[in-house]
Amino acid sequence: MSVTAWPVLPATHPEAGLPTSVSVYEVGARDGLQAEIGIVATEEKIRFLLALRDAGLRTVEATSFVSPRWVPQLADAAEVLAGLGDDLAPYPVLVPNQRGLERALEAGATAVAVFVSATETFAQRNLNMTRGQALEAAQSVAASALDAGLTVRGYVSMCFGDPWEGRVAPQAVAEVSRSLIDAGAYEVSLGDTIGVGTAGHVRHLVDVHRAHDVPVDSVALHFHDTYGQALANVHAGLQAGVRCFDASAGGIGGCPFAGTATGNLATEDLLWMLTGLGIETGVDLAQVVAAGARMTSLLGKPTQSRVAAALG
Amino acid sequence: MSVTAWPVLPATHPEAGLPTSVSVYEVGARDGLQAEIGIVATEEKIRFLLALRDAGLRTVEATSFVSPRWVPQLADAAEVLAGLGDDLAPYPVLVPNQRGLERALEAGATAVAVFVSATETFAQRNLNMTRGQALEAAQSVAASALDAGLTVRGYVSMCFGDPWEGRVAPQAVAEVSRSLIDAGAYEVSLGDTIGVGTAGHVRHLVDVHRAHDVPVDSVALHFHDTYGQALANVHAGLQAGVRCFDASAGGIGGCPFAGTATGNLATEDLLWMLTGLGIETGVDLAQVVAAGARMTSLLGKPTQSRVAAALG
Repeated sequence: MSVTAWPVLPATHPEAGLPTSVSVYEVGARDGLQAEIGIVATEEKIRFLLALRDAGLRTVEATSFVSPRWVPQLADAAEVLAGLGDDLAPYPVLVPNQRGLERALEAGATAVAVFVSATETFAQRNLNMTRGQALEAAQSVAASALDAGLTVRGYVSMCFGDPWEGRVAPQAVAEVSRSLIDAGAYEVSLGDTIGVGTAGHVRHLVDVHRAHDVPVDSVALHFHDTYGQALANVHAGLQAGVRCFDASAGGIGGCPFAGTATGNLATEDLLWMLTGLGIETGVDLAQVVAAGARMTSLLGKPTQSRVAAALG
Repeated sequence: MSVTAWPVLPATHPEAGLPTSVSVYEVGARDGLQAEIGIVATEEKIRFLLALRDAGLRTVEATSFVSPRWVPQLADAAEVLAGLGDDLAPYPVLVPNQRGLERALEAGATAVAVFVSATETFAQRNLNMTRGQALEAAQSVAASALDAGLTVRGYVSMCFGDPWEGRVAPQAVAEVSRSLIDAGAYEVSLGDTIGVGTAGHVRHLVDVHRAHDVPVDSVALHFHDTYGQALANVHAGLQAGVRCFDASAGGIGGCPFAGTATGNLATEDLLWMLTGLGIETGVDLAQVVAAGARMTSLLGKPTQSRVAAALG
């Protein structure tokens, strides 16, 4: 028996108090591919990015201008940007430092993202700096980017837990977020890098941000599904008023800090829930499914999206 | 790098308005195993059931007295019950008809579950009866069981969508539920058999039940994770006041009506969320992880629980 009559979209049942539209910030080509072992051909990355943009995603993070020594998967960052057409505003790029920003500017980027760690240990392990030094460096990169007329988004890692330190104080996260907003970021994306957060934690973290003068309109949520909590956490985030969620087509990406292949929240699964809730995204689910399927096939792995698996 | 300092339980952040304790109704040995291709040895089923009960689960559905011609995986139903000790109250069994009830009574069962379909097509395809005939048959089985001093739970299938009919009217579901309550069921478990429901739909369905005089204390929710929505739907169910959720250790079970191996919500993933929300269940997560791991290993498949995979 197979599904014969089920419509390809869920029944719509809006929930009181939720936003009527949200943004899905697609991170598969950057956060996803940087964590995959395989190296994808430049033309396939470009095809993937253009397909996701065609599907209606307003923002599709394209790549990272990180050192190719550290992330060889994204060594073709400039070549990827060169294939995306004249308007690069929908295709932000991650810039880990001033050198990365210089390369991004040379490649024509008009939107960048910087990232910092909410915890001391991850800053030292991942960035080889203290948390304070990493924050200052990000602020400096943000200032340079703003001077050059770019928009700046901020990522905060390990907002819900840290693999070395364990619990992470929400106040510490909100202080880092506030510093990035002060440095000119239009939005901070709060990353549950190891996926340990749960729904009440999400609500609390957003509330603590509000108390630190980081308004909910400046907060995005970035969940990894390592413990299966990502969509429940989105639901809590919606109820807290958050209107931007990061996700990865096909759920590509891994979690390098846990013994599992489960990575980013799959864009398809997010879209399914938002559609069911009657929340507008402007995104065509079927086109995202198709783009994600091609990319996961190139990576030689099954899709990590349950919606894509069910519809496939 | 591996997780070194992360505690094995999430940080606790209660959410206003949620229940402080809930029941987890374990269905792995019945709903899970009936949908798996492999046949598990009777002594391993008994070991699984006892381990789950030892883990603190108050109710562990043990098996189904369905015809072995239809479900050979559960042909040893009587032998399984015989291995569970004297008190069988924590180990309900599914009885599809009067013949099943007779076998269950002979085997000493003291708690049974009956099931019906919310939709006409599924009743005809799965039970070879009209929906009305199936409901009458279930009511009759329930009456016999109550006469014999047993407790009766009711399952309603296809509550959120049907693979042949598509959309399912919440009113139709609530009418079936009301009939089962009228027939003496202490609780109805609303099954999203094909996993297509989303959070707002859950809230709406519970509200419609309330309007049909099916109080929320008599409603349990039974989600399949086919489209990744199960835990977000539990979150919505908690907010609607539901206090009993069905789940399967290791996420065992498949969804025979969709092209994917994804089946029941994994008990471990549910427990992770409930722990994070500070909701008492009385269940030890590590023991459930261990029991689920043994069973999925016997079935020759990876765990379907993301928590079990991450902690493993």
